[in-house]
Amino acid sequence: MDELVSLCARRGFIFPSSEIYGGINGFWDYGPLGVELKNNLKAFWWQRVVRERDDVEGLDSTVIAHPRTWEASGHVEHFSDPMVDCRTCKRRFRADHVDVPCPEAPKQRSVAECDLTEARNFNLMLRTFIGASEDAASTAFLRAETCQSIFTDFKRVREAARQKIPFGIAQIGKAFRNEINPRNFTFRSREFEQAELEFFVHPSERERWFEYWLEQRVGFHRELGFGDDRLRVRPHEPDELAHYAKAAADVEFLFPFGWQEIEGVHDRGDWDLSRHTEYSGKDLAVTDEQTKERFVPMVVETSVGIDRTALALLCNAYQEEALEGGDTRTVLRLHPAVAPIKAAVLPLSKKLAEPVRRIAADLRRHWNVFYDDAGNIGRRYRRQDEAGTPLCVTYDFESEDDGQVTVRERDGMQQERIALDGLEAYLRERLEARP
Amino acid sequence: MDELVSLCARRGFIFPSSEIYGGINGFWDYGPLGVELKNNLKAFWWQRVVRERDDVEGLDSTVIAHPRTWEASGHVEHFSDPMVDCRTCKRRFRADHVDVPCPEAPKQRSVAECDLTEARNFNLMLRTFIGASEDAASTAFLRAETCQSIFTDFKRVREAARQKIPFGIAQIGKAFRNEINPRNFTFRSREFEQAELEFFVHPSERERWFEYWLEQRVGFHRELGFGDDRLRVRPHEPDELAHYAKAAADVEFLFPFGWQEIEGVHDRGDWDLSRHTEYSGKDLAVTDEQTKERFVPMVVETSVGIDRTALALLCNAYQEEALEGGDTRTVLRLHPAVAPIKAAVLPLSKKLAEPVRRIAADLRRHWNVFYDDAGNIGRRYRRQDEAGTPLCVTYDFESEDDGQVTVRERDGMQQERIALDGLEAYLRERLEARP
Repeated sequence: MDELVSLCARRGFIFPSSEIYGGINGFWDYGPLGVELKNNLKAFWWQRVVRERDDVEGLDSTVIAHPRTWEASGHVEHFSDPMVDCRTCKRRFRADHVDVPCPEAPKQRSVAECDLTEARNFNLMLRTFIGASEDAASTAFLRAETCQSIFTDFKRVREAARQKIPFGIAQIGKAFRNEINPRNFTFRSREFEQAELEFFVHPSERERWFEYWLEQRVGFHRELGFGDDRLRVRPHEPDELAHYAKAAADVEFLFPFGWQEIEGVHDRGDWDLSRHTEYSGKDLAVTDEQTKERFVPMVVETSVGIDRTALALLCNAYQEEALEGGDTRTVLRLHPAVAPIKAAVLPLSKKLAEPVRRIAADLRRHWNVFYDDAGNIGRRYRRQDEAGTPLCVTYDFESEDDGQVTVRERDGMQQERIALDGLEAYLRERLEARP
Repeated sequence: MDELVSLCARRGFIFPSSEIYGGINGFWDYGPLGVELKNNLKAFWWQRVVRERDDVEGLDSTVIAHPRTWEASGHVEHFSDPMVDCRTCKRRFRADHVDVPCPEAPKQRSVAECDLTEARNFNLMLRTFIGASEDAASTAFLRAETCQSIFTDFKRVREAARQKIPFGIAQIGKAFRNEINPRNFTFRSREFEQAELEFFVHPSERERWFEYWLEQRVGFHRELGFGDDRLRVRPHEPDELAHYAKAAADVEFLFPFGWQEIEGVHDRGDWDLSRHTEYSGKDLAVTDEQTKERFVPMVVETSVGIDRTALALLCNAYQEEALEGGDTRTVLRLHPAVAPIKAAVLPLSKKLAEPVRRIAADLRRHWNVFYDDAGNIGRRYRRQDEAGTPLCVTYDFESEDDGQVTVRERDGMQQERIALDGLEAYLRERLEARP
């Protein structure tokens, strides 16, 4: 894990936000390679969940919504951890952590020294103030999950898109939680990105759709390259379920720090739409056109952490590999769909820069392509291995004459001679093939 | 404008956030068509500014950064409007608005009734609290602009990406401002998205790069279809310039509510890097490899409002058109690169659904394609005109036999018979052609 964190910083995948100011606990920035990885992951999800389906609509709602949203959802009342304060040092700790060293500074101070109050609930939503005054009337919250505005926008989206039950609404966006103890690199952070689908179904079909979406979502992660040894489904025990949930399962990935949830699939019942109906006074029920039955749809939710999945992709891809001759190489075996750079184009010598820049410009109409003419070709291959680039295209002095280039594949390192006029089709086949 | 706002709500482009709770002033949600439009615009910017260039790197930083960032940038001290309070009704107004009716409720109350205090500065940044306690030490801000973390991450990105001056760092993301008086639909909102490029240059080259980027950015907007009658460049007068800026120009679009800025191009000098050097104690200067000169790079910034540009695209595209025979149609003449739906596939009869669904599934590997079999074909064309869909593909009973479909073009409404096995290439040519 330490090696991966170090690679991420050195190569510009992920590093602490505000690093020059000592960082800010629980906040991480994505650099040039990281932003491409994350955007590719989001685009892949959008493609599979929204674009390829007739029965899912997209949405992009605001981070800050009307505060009644969070009363209706139960977050204002219940989204909290029990905390204790120290009367002497004025610090605050999670009540379930008071028998361990201080989580904020584990090596400096034990909570045992502290003079602790009784536990009180501490809300995990980030508060802010909207409008000209800072009183209670203008308090607003940064969303703690993206799904709530899917519920508040349900009627508008259904009508605008002329959808009938069953159908879903999906969105990708930032959410914020004031985690007391952010940890495990980007795994538990205070600002993070979710991709959520709320799928609205008739009450008689909830089990079927829960099973369907769980299978779909596991298939998604398998498609990205997670094998059985690192991916599992853990159904929730009855005592783990939220009071309104009928069924739930976590999709877990085996990180270096253990099995952890990267996605949750939940049967949320009619809890959300019923609560927003109650709090808004707007009827969110629907009518079945055939039977004329009026009902509040049940919701099957799939909620994946984009940062967690990006981290899982990096952990899954990272490998230090012994080579013939005693060398080692670091390689990220990322799926081409999420690899930040799809192909590197490399002139064997700087004298060949001009035609290779033209090739790069052509290919960039379709993919993120990297041009590199610095250093010997072996070192350039290593740099691309470390960045997870699936293919390297090398243009040499023979290319001038025979119109061919060498394509070198990341994982097996085999090389193939390809005609330039077939290069785009060759790349398309290898980069965009579906399993 | 009213008609456009109404179309946006009805068709699910843009509508008020938290509508069922009466909305929240200055916050807007993007529905199924709106999110595609906005994502396309962002992808188009990323393609032109980041992906097609060797000299620009991408970044995706957090909304919440270390609070010292905003001290260094000057926002804590200076990013404010002068406000007055009323001693009687306890409301707050912009000092330059006190001679007009109350901006928050123009029809109900005139500020003239009020008993006003002296003007005081009111900061426009949204505050929140990070960590377990709510005291000053844990106060943080939602970013008021995305560029500051480009400056704080400058050294890390430059080293990770092995870039030399001149080069740029670009990012797209949300920003937040506590506007006292949000207005003009999405034009002035409290939560909005920016796409910013900070381009770092040698001090001797700042004028040249300022001119270069201004030209590039105007070209970008022209490429999206903004004509000379609705697009202009307005250089800032010397007294408009920020104290650290040497030159600045607004790119303005003629909205129904007048000429307004959609993008700013600024020569920010070395203000930002120098301030962050001073506040962080980290040396952000660079060394010229040839001359060994050590210098703080100057910054040319291009900053475009994504929501404003999306609104400009809608205003520019919206047309009510008289047709032969006395009918009218509403049509959005959006550039294919940003159109939410690239093509609709329409079976002439529901009996032809099956082959058309197969065509849709094929095309969706490349584009956002909409399947519609509801209503007569003329009405389906109108629905797509209103959504801005450039092409409609109709499959009829003859298609079964001759393997051809009818492609109908949005703007001229001309129709052409195309062989199915050439359909993908035909669409690619029309949807992805560069000017």
